[in-house]
Amino acid sequence: MPEAPDLRLDELKDLAEQDDLHPFLQRVRHVHPSDLADVLSALEESTRVRVISELPLDVASSALAEMEAAEHPEAMLLAVGPEYAAELVEEMPTDDAADLVAELSPGQREAVLAEISDRADVERLLKYPEDSAGGLMTANVVKVREDATVGEAIEAIRQQSDEDESQLYQVYAVDAQGQLRGIVPVARLIVTSPARLVRDVMEQPVVQVQPEQDQEEVARLMARYNVAAVPVVDANGRLLGRITFDDVIDVVEAETTEDLLKFGGMEALDAPYLKVAFGRMVRKRAGWLAALFLGEMLTATAMAFFEEEIAKAVILALFVPLIISSGGNSGSQASTLVIRAMALGEVTLRDWWRVIRREFATGVVLGLVLGAIGFLRITLWHAVTGIYGEHYLLVAFTVFGSLIGVVTFGTMTGSLLPFILRRLGFDPASASAPFVATLVDVTGLVIYFSVASVILRGTLL
Amino acid sequence: MPEAPDLRLDELKDLAEQDDLHPFLQRVRHVHPSDLADVLSALEESTRVRVISELPLDVASSALAEMEAAEHPEAMLLAVGPEYAAELVEEMPTDDAADLVAELSPGQREAVLAEISDRADVERLLKYPEDSAGGLMTANVVKVREDATVGEAIEAIRQQSDEDESQLYQVYAVDAQGQLRGIVPVARLIVTSPARLVRDVMEQPVVQVQPEQDQEEVARLMARYNVAAVPVVDANGRLLGRITFDDVIDVVEAETTEDLLKFGGMEALDAPYLKVAFGRMVRKRAGWLAALFLGEMLTATAMAFFEEEIAKAVILALFVPLIISSGGNSGSQASTLVIRAMALGEVTLRDWWRVIRREFATGVVLGLVLGAIGFLRITLWHAVTGIYGEHYLLVAFTVFGSLIGVVTFGTMTGSLLPFILRRLGFDPASASAPFVATLVDVTGLVIYFSVASVILRGTLL
Repeated sequence: MPEAPDLRLDELKDLAEQDDLHPFLQRVRHVHPSDLADVLSALEESTRVRVISELPLDVASSALAEMEAAEHPEAMLLAVGPEYAAELVEEMPTDDAADLVAELSPGQREAVLAEISDRADVERLLKYPEDSAGGLMTANVVKVREDATVGEAIEAIRQQSDEDESQLYQVYAVDAQGQLRGIVPVARLIVTSPARLVRDVMEQPVVQVQPEQDQEEVARLMARYNVAAVPVVDANGRLLGRITFDDVIDVVEAETTEDLLKFGGMEALDAPYLKVAFGRMVRKRAGWLAALFLGEMLTATAMAFFEEEIAKAVILALFVPLIISSGGNSGSQASTLVIRAMALGEVTLRDWWRVIRREFATGVVLGLVLGAIGFLRITLWHAVTGIYGEHYLLVAFTVFGSLIGVVTFGTMTGSLLPFILRRLGFDPASASAPFVATLVDVTGLVIYFSVASVILRGTLL
Repeated sequence: MPEAPDLRLDELKDLAEQDDLHPFLQRVRHVHPSDLADVLSALEESTRVRVISELPLDVASSALAEMEAAEHPEAMLLAVGPEYAAELVEEMPTDDAADLVAELSPGQREAVLAEISDRADVERLLKYPEDSAGGLMTANVVKVREDATVGEAIEAIRQQSDEDESQLYQVYAVDAQGQLRGIVPVARLIVTSPARLVRDVMEQPVVQVQPEQDQEEVARLMARYNVAAVPVVDANGRLLGRITFDDVIDVVEAETTEDLLKFGGMEALDAPYLKVAFGRMVRKRAGWLAALFLGEMLTATAMAFFEEEIAKAVILALFVPLIISSGGNSGSQASTLVIRAMALGEVTLRDWWRVIRREFATGVVLGLVLGAIGFLRITLWHAVTGIYGEHYLLVAFTVFGSLIGVVTFGTMTGSLLPFILRRLGFDPASASAPFVATLVDVTGLVIYFSVASVILRGTLL
């Protein structure tokens, strides 16, 4: 078992770099393809080509299939020449083969596809968008006629399964037109008499998807119904392939990363943090930061509008960061909650009015809480230091009132924004903390100075 | 297949509320336990007790097992009385049974456990923390001796498997001491001659875990090695149970939610958004907001320190929100990146120095970019409106220089904070956007006014 994978992998890498590859080839038999993929991508180009050519075909093929897109397995494929590349691709499950071939240029793709026997299957998968069920599915399924016997189904597994049995969870029963009629868990075939008909032991699929469905929805269905594999059918119910849980786990992980990074106010990186080139990293981050900065410039305009008030009562400027950050914080809290509830399917577009009413009430209460703390801070601090002048009580009331307004407004904006983004067809996760804060800051200033001009008129202003 | 689950569920709920339950009981046979769980939790207490008592035992039991903790299945269990409750619990896989029983008071727990036959199994699971591998595992495994034949292994599946075959992916081979020796995928049993020995067809487990291991680590291993189930063994290698991918998907989802909400600056809710009571929701949110507010109060103190400068040059106050928000935004970007890279295992504690050097360089470049935009904004705006006075160029340089300092400082703080939190044993995801922004705001003000006092000395100040 992989106790300390990093150490083991370093050792393997050293072995792969020896002139005599035998010790490496001995060890590699007991290494999982995911680990081997890491070793391969850590090697120098020339060593890698040599290692891939020396590895048993099925081992090299599984390692390439397990590689992440960011490690560019297609480049490694090309380095070994089109014939051997085709042999490697042919060994892979069709979904991995299609993912890999999709990264090649049209000419390279043709050179590889020309050599493989399941070309039609791979080409069919290439038609679907990468983030659809079709892009995730493999055509490698075991299917039997529903009027076959259990014994015949077992024979079908022997003949049709061209992959590792550990990924074979179920057999699909189809009718004469190839339409999916039912599912038989592999374990049930074992415990049933071989003479029984598949039709009599099969069950209805709990979930089935069409190739156009979004991969996130597939992931949600599989998680909800605890199924290790789902069949993919076309509009006429004909069986096209299947998607297994391991593809879905990768999707969930990638989507989560994308959401979280959007949420932190940046574009998703397409590779592990330490592997992204510096210039690329800066570009990915500068875009959003600059956009937020341009938005935030409106605060300077808003402040200029109140320049006269600030000149009269400098004390007002002291609380500007406190007031606007409270709006931003309460807004980002609200948007996080709503974004996550949407992602989990707890809240849908039609719930917007319920959510907004609820957030309005929450915002008022939270504003009262922060306002009260602010009021106490100013009055108590003044009692000790006297720095807020003779009208400190009015200043305290200004801060109190502004906080109620700003926090309520922040909370409402934060909760409404994900709904608006989704309604317009954008990803609600773009309602990031920095984005909400930027939206709220300008209004926060306006609220603050407006409350101040009412309360302080005739005294400080 | 569940095309529009919401509509279907509403309809089922209506049926469950009829006096004549027959139509409901007819329909319910074709409903997935996860869907039935939703229907049950939407019912009134009294209707629910009646429905649970009328449902076939195995159907009611699976629905309760599928229910989320926040829906309080243990309360539903108690409502039907201890004898029937025990029957329901006995039908469940031991991991679900243990999760449910764990929620009962000691007295209630004893009443239920006294009635069930696999009490020992359930009690063993109750010993492990909920977030450990032991808390996720079920003791329901099919095991055979490694010196048994494939035919005997198939017989063992018939006899030992007391659950749905669709969740049975592999059979475990053990030696005389119960130590795990290998794994046989169920599909391999089918395609192998019954006379062969299990020892000769089994494979080494790619992953095995111990009950004390953290559930997040289990999830990461299963995702990496694409296994639908992992065996759990004790320190001596004895097989204790197994964890299946569906338990792990739930873990990943819950952990992601927790991370995201922390990240938005609040505690995780323990129930779906719309189901959390208003008072509870406010309390969950007020705590963090108030803490951030107290931290942010330091900005008022810092501003008071520079009150004289502001009085002399009110123009300085105009750019305060712009400057400090840039620090906060760049900081939250950096912390998001590092938190996510840590969660994915791309970055570990020992990488801190590499990350910090990288972030320092990134911060300087991002600061230059924002500074340049800020400089242009002020000079161009002044050319049009003339509002920034005769020293506008010095003001522009002040903003330029401050932005470089503030953005670099924000980026460094944001990237360092997750490392510090993890080193101190806290969750790095607590380095939320609002938390980072609060930390950065005070320093941002100090940087800004310090740069201003150097550049503007003798002119505006």
